[in-house]
Amino acid sequence: MSKSGIEAIGKYIPPSRIDVAELGYKFDAKPDFIRRKIGFEKLARKASDEECSDLCVKAFEDVANRISFPISELDCIVVVTQNPDSGAIPHAAALVHRKIDAPPQVACFDISLGCTGFVHGLSVVLGFMRENNLQRGLFFTSDPYSAIMDPEDRDTAMLFGDAATCTVISPSAVYTVGKSSFATDSQYSEAIRTDKWGGKLSMDGNLVFRSVSMTVPGLIQRNLKLNGLSLEEVDLCLLHQGSKFIVDTVRSLLHLDEQKVPFQAGSIGNTVSSSIPLMLYDVLATNDQPDRILLAGFGVGLSAVATVITHSSIDL
Amino acid sequence: MSKSGIEAIGKYIPPSRIDVAELGYKFDAKPDFIRRKIGFEKLARKASDEECSDLCVKAFEDVANRISFPISELDCIVVVTQNPDSGAIPHAAALVHRKIDAPPQVACFDISLGCTGFVHGLSVVLGFMRENNLQRGLFFTSDPYSAIMDPEDRDTAMLFGDAATCTVISPSAVYTVGKSSFATDSQYSEAIRTDKWGGKLSMDGNLVFRSVSMTVPGLIQRNLKLNGLSLEEVDLCLLHQGSKFIVDTVRSLLHLDEQKVPFQAGSIGNTVSSSIPLMLYDVLATNDQPDRILLAGFGVGLSAVATVITHSSIDL
Repeated sequence: MSKSGIEAIGKYIPPSRIDVAELGYKFDAKPDFIRRKIGFEKLARKASDEECSDLCVKAFEDVANRISFPISELDCIVVVTQNPDSGAIPHAAALVHRKIDAPPQVACFDISLGCTGFVHGLSVVLGFMRENNLQRGLFFTSDPYSAIMDPEDRDTAMLFGDAATCTVISPSAVYTVGKSSFATDSQYSEAIRTDKWGGKLSMDGNLVFRSVSMTVPGLIQRNLKLNGLSLEEVDLCLLHQGSKFIVDTVRSLLHLDEQKVPFQAGSIGNTVSSSIPLMLYDVLATNDQPDRILLAGFGVGLSAVATVITHSSIDL
Repeated sequence: MSKSGIEAIGKYIPPSRIDVAELGYKFDAKPDFIRRKIGFEKLARKASDEECSDLCVKAFEDVANRISFPISELDCIVVVTQNPDSGAIPHAAALVHRKIDAPPQVACFDISLGCTGFVHGLSVVLGFMRENNLQRGLFFTSDPYSAIMDPEDRDTAMLFGDAATCTVISPSAVYTVGKSSFATDSQYSEAIRTDKWGGKLSMDGNLVFRSVSMTVPGLIQRNLKLNGLSLEEVDLCLLHQGSKFIVDTVRSLLHLDEQKVPFQAGSIGNTVSSSIPLMLYDVLATNDQPDRILLAGFGVGLSAVATVITHSSIDL
């Protein structure tokens, strides 16, 4: 019996861009600070009338055009978001269900997590599917932070971009998913938060930085041990693209070079739960796919997660 | 190896009550209509300063006082809610993590679902735990609708109560969980909804009733077949306590009597995802626990779900 995993990924990055250099003038942020610390030159922006589920549908259309995906055989739709269309009710997955005209027996739910949502969600969705003998799932990330950002807030306005991804989970896996390791640093839960009911996002970047640099390198080592691997046996490390500085910091704490731990979000921004699957999208588009890829997310919660995915050609 | 499942359930029902008969005067709803259709005499109400995570903590304290639960061995915290403390960020599970002083390696996330959240969540949590070799989980339901209800809205003000539950998932299962069956009737997604970002709940009860009565009896039959059981082999059916009328309608469509399909929420109201685990709490408190219990939820999405849980004494 074949093992289920990641068959394909679709993406949607809205064409509109905010120029971070221009925001730098406004907030008195020096070009060197923007280049070395923030690392984003542009931030992708959805249209004002596009909602979470609209971005999901466009990411679905991208992947549905490339692989054979009979919608009648779909079993579940799971959306990772903390910004569903409605604010709360109903969940975005039900709206995606309607917009892609999915069949009535499909299970739909949302997972509420931020930047760690994709990596957590992989084992949530795979486990849920295995538990219920489901074969085909669509697993979305779509967290358009522009909807909750205060454009006058220097701490967040230069960071976040909008995007969505759609991962097809099926027995035709290109990558299978290993055991995941988790961390919750809840003393800093409010370092990334919205005000109650419809408020704007606020972030204490120093607290987040401190927590991530203290937590994530050890978590990655713990996860490698759990999966019986060394860092040398991993071909690529895809870290959540929170900022260039946080990626560089975790990378240097692991004593790895930029080729193995890339920063690729310069032209779109921190797209929250979409940052890792957007990089995986590029991996899947190449002919020379790495055997083992470490994935590590960190963010809202404060939450951190790591796992290793393995190419199906070597996962015997 | 023992099979994981439901070891114990804790609950918190706030002591304060709204009198539905008094609301009946206000909304010109006849006592007979309240008794036969709504079925709730009282609605439980949290204190105005109690949040989603506070209710979770009280439900946890209830169960932690009754069973041996070493918090140092906890692996995950999952909260089903569409009303987290913050409105959205962070997820409630991270706040529960802090308030119960859980250890740093614990995975935390929320599931966004309404009245079907407990039944979906059982296989989400069990699957996630199995996928990652986790042993001990706390699975909460806490959706205090009083926070989003318009007290002047006749369609919702006489229905919803506040409560929370905490289900301990471990290898010391009293009940194991069968395969679940799902339905999504997304043409009526907006029959239960909040306005965008911080708005109030609205509900079209007729649409919900039509969808549930068309969907749920067939879904239950499909689930029994999936689990290799007949309706006669099930000892008890715990349906989401949406209203007395909806429970009576599904019951009579299944040709079952009130003893097998109880309505037990008269003194608390429709507690959304907590309604089924609150009834299971009572089952676990008896000495004469049924062998097989069918669980069926329906609500926000519109979503429906059914599964069968089996007493560990006969699940060989």
